[in-house]
Amino acid sequence: MNHTTQVAIVGAGPSGLLLGELLSQAGIDNIVVEQRSPDYVLGRIRAGVLETVCVEALEQAGCAERLHREGLIHHGVELAFGGQRHRVNFEELIGKHVVVYGQTEVTRDLMDARKAAGRSTFYEADNASIHDIDGDNPKVRFVKDGETHEISARFVAGCDGFHGVSRRTVAERVRTFERVYPFGWLGILADVPPVTDELIYANSERGFALSSMRSKTRVRCYIQCSLDDKVEDWSDDRFWDEYLRRLPEEAAATTTTGPSIEKSIAPLRSFVTEPMRFGSLFLAGDAAHIVPPTGAKGLNLAASDVLYLARGITEFFRANSSEGIDAYSQRALSRIWKAERFSWWMTSLLHRFPDQGDFDRAIQRAELDYLVGSTAAKTALAENYVGLPMLA
Amino acid sequence: MNHTTQVAIVGAGPSGLLLGELLSQAGIDNIVVEQRSPDYVLGRIRAGVLETVCVEALEQAGCAERLHREGLIHHGVELAFGGQRHRVNFEELIGKHVVVYGQTEVTRDLMDARKAAGRSTFYEADNASIHDIDGDNPKVRFVKDGETHEISARFVAGCDGFHGVSRRTVAERVRTFERVYPFGWLGILADVPPVTDELIYANSERGFALSSMRSKTRVRCYIQCSLDDKVEDWSDDRFWDEYLRRLPEEAAATTTTGPSIEKSIAPLRSFVTEPMRFGSLFLAGDAAHIVPPTGAKGLNLAASDVLYLARGITEFFRANSSEGIDAYSQRALSRIWKAERFSWWMTSLLHRFPDQGDFDRAIQRAELDYLVGSTAAKTALAENYVGLPMLA
Repeated sequence: MNHTTQVAIVGAGPSGLLLGELLSQAGIDNIVVEQRSPDYVLGRIRAGVLETVCVEALEQAGCAERLHREGLIHHGVELAFGGQRHRVNFEELIGKHVVVYGQTEVTRDLMDARKAAGRSTFYEADNASIHDIDGDNPKVRFVKDGETHEISARFVAGCDGFHGVSRRTVAERVRTFERVYPFGWLGILADVPPVTDELIYANSERGFALSSMRSKTRVRCYIQCSLDDKVEDWSDDRFWDEYLRRLPEEAAATTTTGPSIEKSIAPLRSFVTEPMRFGSLFLAGDAAHIVPPTGAKGLNLAASDVLYLARGITEFFRANSSEGIDAYSQRALSRIWKAERFSWWMTSLLHRFPDQGDFDRAIQRAELDYLVGSTAAKTALAENYVGLPMLA
Repeated sequence: MNHTTQVAIVGAGPSGLLLGELLSQAGIDNIVVEQRSPDYVLGRIRAGVLETVCVEALEQAGCAERLHREGLIHHGVELAFGGQRHRVNFEELIGKHVVVYGQTEVTRDLMDARKAAGRSTFYEADNASIHDIDGDNPKVRFVKDGETHEISARFVAGCDGFHGVSRRTVAERVRTFERVYPFGWLGILADVPPVTDELIYANSERGFALSSMRSKTRVRCYIQCSLDDKVEDWSDDRFWDEYLRRLPEEAAATTTTGPSIEKSIAPLRSFVTEPMRFGSLFLAGDAAHIVPPTGAKGLNLAASDVLYLARGITEFFRANSSEGIDAYSQRALSRIWKAERFSWWMTSLLHRFPDQGDFDRAIQRAELDYLVGSTAAKTALAENYVGLPMLA
C-alpha cells in the first residue's frame, strides 16, 4: 500500500508526536510510523522535568492544557551532601522555574491530540526501513498486519530513539561521541507522598540518590547501582533501606516508603551524533543523542531539536526557504553539546566512581561546597537546569 | 649556639618572609632559617599574579610600596580557543582585578624589609630538623658554617615548600591527597613586549599555551609539553614556533619573539596535606599544598595561609586566645580546597590529555563555548581567579 505525505516521521515517542503536532499546526501533512503499540510506548517510564522551552513547544502544539492544570511548578532543586540539604532557588537566581510532569503524560497528551485530529499514524509497524534520503523524495517502508506499506515524502524525520532504524540508516556517515558511565540508576515508582515539594539530588559516601516525584502522591526515587546489579536483587525493602542511607538523616526520617509499582535499572550514557541531517533525513531526540538522566535534559533536548526542525521544515514549505533546514544540525548541536556538558558535569559531581581516588573525592566535595556558597556558580547551575535559551 | 624566639620560621621564600614581617609588625619575635642562599631563593621563577588578599597581606607587612608602583593591574584575562580570543572582564563582572608582579619581586621586597629591620635570619642553614612539636617548646636545629645552632621557640612555622623538612617531620601523621598531571609546562622568560596587556590562556589542538608577562618589556610564555621532554630539546626557535601555533592566528601574527633569558620545565601537580597543624608546628604554603599553575593560585594560597596563621599566633600572644591557632587548619583548608578545585578545573579545561577521547575533547569545547557565552559562568571564573574571600 502506498502513501504520500510531506513529512514521514519515524517514531511515536514524544519527539515524533510533538513534531507531528507542530507540523500539523503549520498545515504540513505528516504520517507517523511506530514499531510498538500505544500501550508499550506509554509504559516507558522516563523523565518528568520540563524546561520552559519544552512547555512552550507543547503550548505551540496545542497540547499543554492538562500540563498546565496538573504539572507542578518547581522553583528550585536541593543538593544534599555531608548530611546537609542546600536549596538552589531558580526563581530567585534567574526568575525561572521548571515544571514536573511525567514524560508518559506528555506522550499521552500528544497521542490523544493526534488521535482526536485523525492524523495518520501506524503503530506496530514492523521492519521499517528508510530509502532514497539523498534525493528529494525519500521513502519509508514497513510491514503492518502482513501488508507492506511505502510512504513517499519530501522529508523523513528520524525520531525513533537510540535503538531505532533512522541512525542505523546513516551509520556509515555519522561521527559519534560516547561516554558510558560505570554505574546505573535503579529507580522505583511508588504511590506515596514525596518527602519535599522539590527534587533532592544527594551525593553520599554510598553513592548518588535522587528523590523525585510525579505528583503529590507519586514518587520516583533512584539510587546509583552497579552495572552488575539485577532488578531481582533489589526487594523494595532493600531499595528503601539503601536509598534512605544516602539522604541526610532528617530527610530520611520524614520519608514515606511504600510498595513499588515499577522498578527498573537503566545504564547511564552520553552520546552525540554529528551531523543530524543527511540529505532529506533529519535525526531528532534520542535518535541523535543521549544524556545521562542526572540533568533531566533528555526530553527537553528532544523538544528543542523538534522546535528547530519544525521551524525549518515550515519555512521550507511556507516560505520556500531552505535556510532553517540547512542550519538545523548546527543549531541543534550547539544546544545539545551544552546540555551534554551540563549532564556530564552533574553526573560527575554527584556520583561515586569506581576509580575515584581520595583527591577526586575531595575535589567533588570542594566543588559542592563552593557551589552552594557561590551565587555565580548556583546561577550557572540554575540557567542550565531550567534550560539555556534557543537560538533566535 | 642557642637562640630563643617566639616563632621559628623554617623557609625564607615568600611564605616564611611574609609571616616573619606580619608577626614582626605585631611585635612578635621570630627567626627565619633557610637552607639556600638569598640569590638562590631569588633565582626561582614563579607565578606573578597577585590576588587582592595577597596584595593586602603585603600592605599589612609594609612591603607593598614597589608593588603599587610597578605592579600591573589586570582587569581581566583572555581565553583563546577555536581560533578566537574571548575576554573575561573581572572589573565588569565583579568589580575586582589582579596585580601582575613577579613572585621574585615579592620575595625581594620582603627580603629587603627584613634585612633593613635587622631581623634574625639564617641563610645556608644545613641539616635543619624540627623537634618537640608536641610540647610547648619546640626546637629547630641546623648547622651553619660548621656550627650547630638550636632555636627554642613557642611555635614553629613550616614554610619550607614541597620538599622541605617540615612536612617530612610529620610524614606519618598527615593525610595526603594528590594528582600528578600527565604533562608539564615548558616556560621561557624573554625581554620582549607582551602581545597584549593581559594574559591569554589558549586551548588548542596542539595543547595548552599561556601568554603572560612580568612587565611591559618582559614576557613569561608557557607551552604544555611532554613529561619526557628535556629543556635541551627545546631551542628558542622551536619553542616560539610551537607556542605561536597554539595561539589564534591574529595573536600569533602580532607576537614579538626574542632570545630566552630563562627556560625550564615544571611538572604539574595537585597536592594537599591534612591537617596543617601538629601541636606546635604549623605548615603553610607549598609545604602543605601544591596547585598546578593554571589558576595562578600558588603564591596567593600561601598568602592566605600566612594571614590566618599570623592572626592566630598574634591572638595567642596578644590576647591569650588559642581560638585562631586551633581553627587554623580548618580555615586554611576551606580556602585551599576551593583553590585546588579551581586550579584542577582550569587545568582540565585548557590542556590536552593523553587519554582524552573524542567525547572528552568535545565536552571541553562545549564548556569553553558555554563559559564565554554565560555571564554566570564567567562570574564564577572571575571570582575564583581574583580569589575567594577569606573567612572573617
